[in-house]
Amino acid sequence: MPEFLTLLPPDEAREKLLAALSRATPDSEILAVDSALGRVTAEDIVAPHPLPEFPRTTVDGYAVRAADTFGATDSLPAYLHLIGEVPMGDEPSVEIGAGQCALIHTGGMLPDGANAVVMLEYTQRIVGSGSVRPEIEVFKSVADGENVIRIGEDVAKDQIVIPKGATLRPAEIGGLMALGITSLRVARKPMVGLISTGDEVIEPSQYPRPGQVRDINSYTLGALIERSGGIPVRYGIIGDEFELLKSASAKALNECDVVIVTAGSSASTRDMTAEVIRQLGEPGVLVHGINTRPGKPTILGKCNGKAVIGLPGNPVSALVNGYLFVVPVIEKLLGAIPKPKATVQAKLTVNLPSQAGREDWWAVKLVANSDQVSGIRYQAEPIFGKSNLIFTLAAGDGLLKIHPDATGLSAGEIVEVVLI
Amino acid sequence: MPEFLTLLPPDEAREKLLAALSRATPDSEILAVDSALGRVTAEDIVAPHPLPEFPRTTVDGYAVRAADTFGATDSLPAYLHLIGEVPMGDEPSVEIGAGQCALIHTGGMLPDGANAVVMLEYTQRIVGSGSVRPEIEVFKSVADGENVIRIGEDVAKDQIVIPKGATLRPAEIGGLMALGITSLRVARKPMVGLISTGDEVIEPSQYPRPGQVRDINSYTLGALIERSGGIPVRYGIIGDEFELLKSASAKALNECDVVIVTAGSSASTRDMTAEVIRQLGEPGVLVHGINTRPGKPTILGKCNGKAVIGLPGNPVSALVNGYLFVVPVIEKLLGAIPKPKATVQAKLTVNLPSQAGREDWWAVKLVANSDQVSGIRYQAEPIFGKSNLIFTLAAGDGLLKIHPDATGLSAGEIVEVVLI
Repeated sequence: MPEFLTLLPPDEAREKLLAALSRATPDSEILAVDSALGRVTAEDIVAPHPLPEFPRTTVDGYAVRAADTFGATDSLPAYLHLIGEVPMGDEPSVEIGAGQCALIHTGGMLPDGANAVVMLEYTQRIVGSGSVRPEIEVFKSVADGENVIRIGEDVAKDQIVIPKGATLRPAEIGGLMALGITSLRVARKPMVGLISTGDEVIEPSQYPRPGQVRDINSYTLGALIERSGGIPVRYGIIGDEFELLKSASAKALNECDVVIVTAGSSASTRDMTAEVIRQLGEPGVLVHGINTRPGKPTILGKCNGKAVIGLPGNPVSALVNGYLFVVPVIEKLLGAIPKPKATVQAKLTVNLPSQAGREDWWAVKLVANSDQVSGIRYQAEPIFGKSNLIFTLAAGDGLLKIHPDATGLSAGEIVEVVLI
Repeated sequence: MPEFLTLLPPDEAREKLLAALSRATPDSEILAVDSALGRVTAEDIVAPHPLPEFPRTTVDGYAVRAADTFGATDSLPAYLHLIGEVPMGDEPSVEIGAGQCALIHTGGMLPDGANAVVMLEYTQRIVGSGSVRPEIEVFKSVADGENVIRIGEDVAKDQIVIPKGATLRPAEIGGLMALGITSLRVARKPMVGLISTGDEVIEPSQYPRPGQVRDINSYTLGALIERSGGIPVRYGIIGDEFELLKSASAKALNECDVVIVTAGSSASTRDMTAEVIRQLGEPGVLVHGINTRPGKPTILGKCNGKAVIGLPGNPVSALVNGYLFVVPVIEKLLGAIPKPKATVQAKLTVNLPSQAGREDWWAVKLVANSDQVSGIRYQAEPIFGKSNLIFTLAAGDGLLKIHPDATGLSAGEIVEVVLI
């Protein structure tokens, strides 16, 4: 009695779901930049002015006319008259004429007339006596613009400095502040409704009677959603009753941007989720059954423009398929530009068999073990265990994928482990 | 006029600072598990009971005595009497005797007498007529324990399931819930005081006059601290005046667990920070000058048991050295077990020269460009720019390290890029 007629490859299944979701601009909100770490920009950020706004020196030294230093060497230094010092944080009060220079500190504004800065270590000050103006010996020539950041060298006025869809990291936060942009428009966090089903499932705070298990999925998925930039909204545990599940799902669909139902583990509950998604709104179920392990019974659907995802009840399947399907949906709703996934290269310790055509995901432990030849710093030790065991995942540092085309991986192979 | 007598290699400098910090148990607080994502456990978590607490089936099928199925094949099936169905979430009401079986759903509790489960697809039900009890044909034998998770197979009672110092990810959150642990003791977030110095530095909300620049470092470092599990506490901008910096630093040292001073860019300010750290408390400056680019003028100190770090004023140096020195200090204070760093393997597009003995860090852009032979999916394009330009870092996906022993990297080399 096959439950699924066809199993889609996970990449194809995910593409089908993402393609079905609206490409409209996501909702957005205005936020202070210093509370916006990790948020996704909802508009291109344009520089209101060039950066820097004035020519600055990158070194401590003397602001000069470059031409005055041409040919200067240790044995044949150039001599320049010191006419002043550039104060930090203010306009220079001097203008550099031919044969003149001014002391300047890193970050200081280049005085008019100067077009380069000679580093302090290539100079020597000749102390003037009495009324004689101090002179500076210069032992090295500088080119026009040397040791100077020109106006707009970091960014030009009206340049797009951060594109729409960028995730704000410390560097972007700093860039915004540098431009005086202290608030910005970011994508609103998608609300993701979570429903756990199953007559055997109880709240974590309760003590299970024989046959009962605590709800894990609302919390693992909730944490995953939170970490991915969404807001988890828990709708609690629904027993194995169609009408109850349907009305809870309808409520969640109405209030949230995405709905996730983790099936009770029995076959009847699994079928129920698909039927609820069919009845909840058009077009309903898009994908039922995915050629991956764990996660075969995963259901991807769309109802009234919103993603509705049915995940297997077993905690490891639910969480692994959360990484595979829920996170990309959240990123799509945020309008986030795809970024390289964080991975660790490691040497596999054992052979891992796999069924050709199926994509397998293994929890692995990364054990530090430097290989001088390859430069690989970790060994990947698969954690063997029945897929229902949440602590096999908690003991893992990451997930290792076996590609559907492969019939397995060999001990000693260098593999890429996705951190979880 | 060398500013530094000796430059320490960054690894050695970091070790020196970390070794000097107290190894005492960090402060901790009790938190609800569902608000503890990303936090670090302050104690070993011990299983209060085994998991699962009752033997469960991992498949849909029939609970049997394994011996009753021995030798069963398609052509010679075993015949078992169906005596009932195991309800989800409750104790079975039947006990399996010789020649008997009961219908059971994935996750259901194994009835007494049974020691294995035959998958539904290897069975056929013979519909009984009238008073005849239904019989099940079994076409495949099962071993003792097959398709069953035994009591304690995930975790045993009193087993340490999550060690002290673990960072809570979705999987750990789920594991805790599975055990009914809904609150736990986590390390308190270290408070990190941030002081920006420099007569030229103004608040981001202000419009700079010529010669002035906005404060970037308080915000890039604040975001980095936040992301690393600390709490940034901003003490604002202090002008180039020794007593002001000293009293602001003393206040921050008193109120926080770590103090960071980002120097104004002028030489006088840089010297001032070192002198303040010397006067602030014993032993004062531990490292002054590090053989890295950017970041040579970084100062690592310890005053009254707390880390005090002086970072260069230029925003790129400050942030890169924040990754190198501030993040490890926060992780140490959290008592976090070191984890593999997230990296991306990429092929370098150009030659990068480097000075032997110095550790260089380059901002690089990762461009998707699959190499079928090596399996490497990205090219690493270094971003060339003067190190003062914050947007060179904002444009980068990560940082590439050139090891002190190397004299550079060659185009085409496979490099490891640390995501930022």
